[in-house]
Amino acid sequence: MTIALIVLAAGQGTRMNSDLPKVLHRVGAAPLVAHALAAGRALEPERVIVVAGHGAEAVTRAVAKIDPEAEVVIQAEQLGTGHAVAQALPALAGFAGRVIVLYGDTPFIRPETLEGLAASPAAVTVLGFEAADPGRYGRLVASGSALERIVEFKDATDEERAITLCNSGVIACDAELLEELVAGLGNANAAGEYYLTDIVAAARARGLPAEVVTCDEAETLGINTRAELARAEALFQARARTEAQENGVTMVDPGTVYFALDTYIGRDVVLGPHVVFGPGVTIESGATIEAFCHLEGCHISRGATIGPFARLRPGAELAEEVHIGNFVEVKNAILGEGVKVGHLTYLGDAEIGEGTNIGAGTVTCNYDGVFKHRTTIGAHAFIGSDTMLVAPVTVGDGALTGSGSVITEDVPAGAIALGRAKQVTRPGLATKLFEMLRAKKANLKKGA
Amino acid sequence: MTIALIVLAAGQGTRMNSDLPKVLHRVGAAPLVAHALAAGRALEPERVIVVAGHGAEAVTRAVAKIDPEAEVVIQAEQLGTGHAVAQALPALAGFAGRVIVLYGDTPFIRPETLEGLAASPAAVTVLGFEAADPGRYGRLVASGSALERIVEFKDATDEERAITLCNSGVIACDAELLEELVAGLGNANAAGEYYLTDIVAAARARGLPAEVVTCDEAETLGINTRAELARAEALFQARARTEAQENGVTMVDPGTVYFALDTYIGRDVVLGPHVVFGPGVTIESGATIEAFCHLEGCHISRGATIGPFARLRPGAELAEEVHIGNFVEVKNAILGEGVKVGHLTYLGDAEIGEGTNIGAGTVTCNYDGVFKHRTTIGAHAFIGSDTMLVAPVTVGDGALTGSGSVITEDVPAGAIALGRAKQVTRPGLATKLFEMLRAKKANLKKGA
Amino acid sequence: MTIALIVLAAGQGTRMNSDLPKVLHRVGAAPLVAHALAAGRALEPERVIVVAGHGAEAVTRAVAKIDPEAEVVIQAEQLGTGHAVAQALPALAGFAGRVIVLYGDTPFIRPETLEGLAASPAAVTVLGFEAADPGRYGRLVASGSALERIVEFKDATDEERAITLCNSGVIACDAELLEELVAGLGNANAAGEYYLTDIVAAARARGLPAEVVTCDEAETLGINTRAELARAEALFQARARTEAQENGVTMVDPGTVYFALDTYIGRDVVLGPHVVFGPGVTIESGATIEAFCHLEGCHISRGATIGPFARLRPGAELAEEVHIGNFVEVKNAILGEGVKVGHLTYLGDAEIGEGTNIGAGTVTCNYDGVFKHRTTIGAHAFIGSDTMLVAPVTVGDGALTGSGSVITEDVPAGAIALGRAKQVTRPGLATKLFEMLRAKKANLKKGA
Repeated sequence: MTIALIVLAAGQGTRMNSDLPKVLHRVGAAPLVAHALAAGRALEPERVIVVAGHGAEAVTRAVAKIDPEAEVVIQAEQLGTGHAVAQALPALAGFAGRVIVLYGDTPFIRPETLEGLAASPAAVTVLGFEAADPGRYGRLVASGSALERIVEFKDATDEERAITLCNSGVIACDAELLEELVAGLGNANAAGEYYLTDIVAAARARGLPAEVVTCDEAETLGINTRAELARAEALFQARARTEAQENGVTMVDPGTVYFALDTYIGRDVVLGPHVVFGPGVTIESGATIEAFCHLEGCHISRGATIGPFARLRPGAELAEEVHIGNFVEVKNAILGEGVKVGHLTYLGDAEIGEGTNIGAGTVTCNYDGVFKHRTTIGAHAFIGSDTMLVAPVTVGDGALTGSGSVITEDVPAGAIALGRAKQVTRPGLATKLFEMLRAKKANLKKGA
Repeated sequence: MTIALIVLAAGQGTRMNSDLPKVLHRVGAAPLVAHALAAGRALEPERVIVVAGHGAEAVTRAVAKIDPEAEVVIQAEQLGTGHAVAQALPALAGFAGRVIVLYGDTPFIRPETLEGLAASPAAVTVLGFEAADPGRYGRLVASGSALERIVEFKDATDEERAITLCNSGVIACDAELLEELVAGLGNANAAGEYYLTDIVAAARARGLPAEVVTCDEAETLGINTRAELARAEALFQARARTEAQENGVTMVDPGTVYFALDTYIGRDVVLGPHVVFGPGVTIESGATIEAFCHLEGCHISRGATIGPFARLRPGAELAEEVHIGNFVEVKNAILGEGVKVGHLTYLGDAEIGEGTNIGAGTVTCNYDGVFKHRTTIGAHAFIGSDTMLVAPVTVGDGALTGSGSVITEDVPAGAIALGRAKQVTRPGLATKLFEMLRAKKANLKKGA
Repeated sequence: MTIALIVLAAGQGTRMNSDLPKVLHRVGAAPLVAHALAAGRALEPERVIVVAGHGAEAVTRAVAKIDPEAEVVIQAEQLGTGHAVAQALPALAGFAGRVIVLYGDTPFIRPETLEGLAASPAAVTVLGFEAADPGRYGRLVASGSALERIVEFKDATDEERAITLCNSGVIACDAELLEELVAGLGNANAAGEYYLTDIVAAARARGLPAEVVTCDEAETLGINTRAELARAEALFQARARTEAQENGVTMVDPGTVYFALDTYIGRDVVLGPHVVFGPGVTIESGATIEAFCHLEGCHISRGATIGPFARLRPGAELAEEVHIGNFVEVKNAILGEGVKVGHLTYLGDAEIGEGTNIGAGTVTCNYDGVFKHRTTIGAHAFIGSDTMLVAPVTVGDGALTGSGSVITEDVPAGAIALGRAKQVTRPGLATKLFEMLRAKKANLKKGA
């Protein structure tokens, strides 16, 4: 089945009370539109079109990051879902196959559901759901899976209002037919908008069959306020936590662990309370993440122990049995097997060989105010506490830097490098100094 | 309307199992009595009297901080609410107007409710509430808003016990009348105490009208145990979180953000999970606070990004687009526009000009063991990693300090300052040293 | 009463989806088997036998730490609970008294319940519970406390299935009789296993009395999946939090404080949100633990203030009024009264006298790559910011180290020690350097 997706992402989301376009608000550390795109991408569509409107520039930039092969088209004025799809159609020129129209603000739709829509043999297929409280949703008048028509709540008879099968707005249609039907849409309604939904009536009027495919109501959950966003986040996290438990992950308090859309965690990983995952984290089996850790864009190998109070940033790649301790930040750095970084350290733009020990208070000075530079440390080296590694700089295998040293030149393998002044001790001077300072304080108090 | 407040804050709170006076236990990072005072202050009263008893010294100190214009009077013996008010009356000498008596341990009373009490035309007005479970509360026998009398549960008939309108204990009364009525109170009851409530009967006996004004039961919630304190905290937080969402604040997990009584957060601010606000925080629109931040007494301007793992302490003032990274503490420091403090830094008693970059591991050495001193850094300066700024010291605009430097003298604008030893490298010495140490260890093991 | 315990801890826990033996999964920071052992130890048993099987090596190591006097026996093949007990019996040779058989994966059983089993006068006593939903549990057919027989669900009549008194599997029996009965067990059942439960029928067949002792269903809660483990953790924490509140501990948000099995906290201690206790923490009355703290194996005395963002590791002993600030780690270190460690510091293997101030960025360099060494600091000393204390080293009473110093030699009392280079300032050089770097960047951009 050849498939194209149209993702509608032009809404402002007035009730969000925000300058950020609605589809860029985040759930699971990913913009809402990323969830819809991920579900759609699982079908391996030939083309993906995102229709942007409000905040189109920001949406375009975001989509380019999330899904570089998606094409963004602009809906300059928001004249309804049918109008939005019309903006997308030129980008589908030459495409023959099935088009699925979905929404950038409904993050929970499952790939399996979209597959059902794609596989439906009818000319037009609508995604419906059994609503617990149908309220003012449009109703689907169907006989089995054969969809007769969609009736809006305000136009529905009492009998029709008793129907609980509701319209999600998601539609699949053959491409050529979609173009014809959308071209024929009118806007003779109270809002003066072009409704995509109306293509069902148009198809039926041509004598074409329409079908309804159903999904759980939860899949159709849309987001309109910050409170709904927080609830969607809670729902996303609840699912991610359960899935992790089933995969053999131990969490001391699952409710305090925050997954991202793409977090991957292996079996027998132990997560302490209060662990936050940004995008792009993979953790191999048997690693331990202590409490109060913040991880993003990093890979953690088997048997590594992280935290508490550790921050791993994008590009941190930790080999097996690495230990990262408290108040340690690692960014864009490759750490070899068994590297130990126990305390109060910043490693950025670095590569460190296996078995090396990094002392407390070490900093890779990677920025000169204009350029960033790399630090390279060999295997089984010993970086003394409070070593400043002024990049670009290389420390060889088995070398040692003295604590408190500023390392500005390369250190050969097996060498000791020191960059510190000799200690000078002045007997009795502290006693005198503090006597003087305290006398001064006493005088100030008298004066006051 | 000229108003005076009397806040009763003398109770011990035996069931708290605590040495701290009950009204100093905290909700929303503020003592309980601060909540009552804040609600009362909204009416712009002419005088505010706090009646302290248990832990009077601590309460007096606390009130002086919270509301320096409030006067504290001492109730040496706790002989009932009527006796407590009697202690406050001398401090109201010469005051003509409406007196409202409220409680230091009921933090949820709203200003609107107190305004209703103040505006009531009756000589004596009592705050009542419809109780979901009236239990042993005193009942208000009223006809519409006309209050006939208050009947204690133990004295009530079955018919009176069926009343659900209950007495909160909060009372408003004209000042002169209050003085007369309180003077006439007796203590001929089982507890031998003087009950403020009895002034209603006394006023009615004089043929004066009494009125009841009502509020939600939740407003009258008092606190008697640690568990009730925790529930009050939860209630306070739930409201603060909802209010923030309505104001356009995004919280990834609202349940993990802790507001203080006076926290102010602008629109489109994003708060990660696990953010704790102490008193005195204001955040402008569009700032981002990452996970694991602890903020107190600070101001954060538009577009600033904070954390994760950042701590801002009282006196931290951050201009627009400031970036504070991980394991950074800022106290009593003014940071100009676009200042970047990425990692592992302590800035205390400092002023930093716009566009300056502070390297990892920088410390403002502000304390000499007796006095505190200030550090001043200009605009567009570059403070190298692990720079010790021994205050008092000034670094000029566009100056640079080398990493690992101890800066004890002022650095002129545009200058480079270094305070570090030259690197010395000894080839082969690390290899020898580790061979020796490992041999020693092997020998020790053999010996053991 | 002379008592012996047999703790069955051989199961694999297939549904945990884990390489870790089930009884080593943790609740309250302690392996499940530690909970059962703690409950059993309260009875002061003469002997404690743990039967290990899956992961026996790891279980043996763990039990040696938890309860060094317990003996571990191995059940090489898992042929049922009766077989497991048979493996334990040789280790009870010569023991005359009451044997209680309990389970390593049921952490909530209370000592009082085990005492009831021990005190029961019957030859064989079974622990039963009234099940809210009896499901497929074995039923106890009893008349009062007299136990007639145990009937498995699958063999039960409808009448028997209506019984709600169920079998927990915990059994007490006189030692000599237990040996005889276990020796007579058969495995003629579907699973081909030896069931300990069958000793009840055997005893009854000899005309011996059996008894049932009951407990709350919650005490018998076993753990078979990660989700059940998380629920057990939640139950443990809920109880620990309530108990702490009743003891006069204030928690801003109790749901974010994680206790260990052996945490002890005094009265009027205040705990901020997000505090995690590992094993072995004791806190005296009136200490304050701010938000985001991680404490393990440490003692905190009266009036100390800790955090936010502090980590105390095993062997940290803090005297009264000690202050530990943010991003500070303390391990195996004794801190005297009033010691202040405000910021960004690592203290490991150290002893610090009363009234000493430790500057920001201080590190005890305790590791030379092979050995660990101690740092000793006297009373009322002043350790300047970013001091590296290269252990073994001693700083005397009232001594001062200059900020940025590397201290490699002992500092006498009252002396000042400096180990840093003098500042050199080069006017105008920063301006030139940045001009050059920016020009280079501009050229690179042009080239690109």
